[in-house]
Amino acid sequence: MNENVLGIIAGLLTSGSMIPQLVKVIKEKNADDLSSGMLIVLISGVSLWIWYGFLKDELPIILTNAFSVVVNVTLLIYCLIYKNK
Amino acid sequence: MNENVLGIIAGLLTSGSMIPQLVKVIKEKNADDLSSGMLIVLISGVSLWIWYGFLKDELPIILTNAFSVVVNVTLLIYCLIYKNK
Repeated sequence: MNENVLGIIAGLLTSGSMIPQLVKVIKEKNADDLSSGMLIVLISGVSLWIWYGFLKDELPIILTNAFSVVVNVTLLIYCLIYKNK
Repeated sequence: MNENVLGIIAGLLTSGSMIPQLVKVIKEKNADDLSSGMLIVLISGVSLWIWYGFLKDELPIILTNAFSVVVNVTLLIYCLIYKNK
């Protein structure tokens, strides 16, 4: 299989696995299941993967981790909003 | 920064972010917060990243995703055990 296609599929699966969590938080307006500390660790790691992707010039890593940052930052924002209520 | 060191740190942060979840499940003997479907998607994605790592011959990707498979397969096993009770 083409490496880039493989990387994009891999990245969609790993980034996409957080989407049901995001949908659940938005629907239930409740983020008690989530740890904001864990999300901050995850966002840091994903951001470093983007940096790694730039150093290695690997588009699948950059694109899918950028998507993951968007999903997880959104989760973190909801987490902070709902926990302050 | 050395690319391999960067990749290992990035991978430890992203893989490690699931460990608090694992500890919580083991302590509380409860996996109601977890979706086994989500874990299967995540494990599939992480396994494809390992394949990608082998194709590109990138050790940080192989090692950190292998660690992630171990953590998430353990979570899935606990998930299946506790949900059948």
